[in-house]
Amino acid sequence: MKSISRSEIDSMEKIYRANLINSITGYKPANLIGTISGEGITNLAIISSVMHLGSNPPLIGFIQRPVTVQRDTYENIIKTGYYTINHVHGEFIGKAHQTSARFARDVSEFEACDLSEEYINGFKAPYVKESKVKIGMHFLQEIPIVQNGTILIIGEIIDIHISNQCLEKDGNLDLNLVNDVCISGLSTYHKVSHKASFSYAKPDQQLELVV
Amino acid sequence: MKSISRSEIDSMEKIYRANLINSITGYKPANLIGTISGEGITNLAIISSVMHLGSNPPLIGFIQRPVTVQRDTYENIIKTGYYTINHVHGEFIGKAHQTSARFARDVSEFEACDLSEEYINGFKAPYVKESKVKIGMHFLQEIPIVQNGTILIIGEIIDIHISNQCLEKDGNLDLNLVNDVCISGLSTYHKVSHKASFSYAKPDQQLELVV
Repeated sequence: MKSISRSEIDSMEKIYRANLINSITGYKPANLIGTISGEGITNLAIISSVMHLGSNPPLIGFIQRPVTVQRDTYENIIKTGYYTINHVHGEFIGKAHQTSARFARDVSEFEACDLSEEYINGFKAPYVKESKVKIGMHFLQEIPIVQNGTILIIGEIIDIHISNQCLEKDGNLDLNLVNDVCISGLSTYHKVSHKASFSYAKPDQQLELVV
Repeated sequence: MKSISRSEIDSMEKIYRANLINSITGYKPANLIGTISGEGITNLAIISSVMHLGSNPPLIGFIQRPVTVQRDTYENIIKTGYYTINHVHGEFIGKAHQTSARFARDVSEFEACDLSEEYINGFKAPYVKESKVKIGMHFLQEIPIVQNGTILIIGEIIDIHISNQCLEKDGNLDLNLVNDVCISGLSTYHKVSHKASFSYAKPDQQLELVV
């Protein structure tokens, strides 16, 4: 076992520390956030901080990095009020990761990274056509995190579009079936395969494997 | 493609909706949060909402469900100021999931679920001995999320304890090597295997596979 103290973390070389602290929370979901500017320029950004906030109402959050530099995704969400969240599959992880490059403001990552815009039911923000799990979101609130200048963006689900194959009878999604990937650190992608599903846990009862 | 509207989500049966909306954000990390009460009763709770907030200072957040019912983890964190975050590995997912049962306040989930308390360097909160990636946390702030009564708990990293084998030269952790699992929905666990690691993305440059 290797122990690392806070003072050691604080004095680490910057990239080493970023790798370590971005790895230390475990696996993260891989999503692309699609937006459009007031001028009609679309934007696509990979993000690993999408989180479930609640089911009723259906709320999702993500962490926006400090807006001290140009942040198209953030500006588009605040201005238009709408965005999409699209799962990343193994078939296009390279294209998805490439959206993290700093493209100029007038360049659409959709085009630059060879992913396709899709507009469904008049929803203002672009979905990713290649994605088999996509969510239309309406912006609700931004909460500044004073300790480091990041922002928690809270939105509500407006629409869900999913591949028919992955919706199970009980409402769960089979994310293995659509080849969803997860992320560790800043740039490592992993494939995922089912290990076990359990029954609802009760204090005096043995857990049951349901699959 | 199946489309589901917000009004359909709002009128879904409760468990079905919980399964769907808990699945829709993608894969989630599997962590156990360890705490101790003022009376010395330890607590252990599995949680899938741990998130990276920033590397410098090293900050981690998680979403606390509404405290309208007994929430030992939350109360212990607020009272003592300290907690641990411990990765869940394939070897003990059943024990880890069992911590989600509603045990009485005077029962320690460590004992009830057959996991071992570990105290390192005088840190107040208990670590999980079986875990190969563990973090000692100091509570900083709670931010209420008004839309649904959940709370974002923000803490800073005080200590990290990791298996020697999983720390890579560049600071990344090889989470595959320690058999970390991820979660989808409320009770499905997955094993994870490396697919690709990319170079830092730049606008006019082809991504390189670094592993």
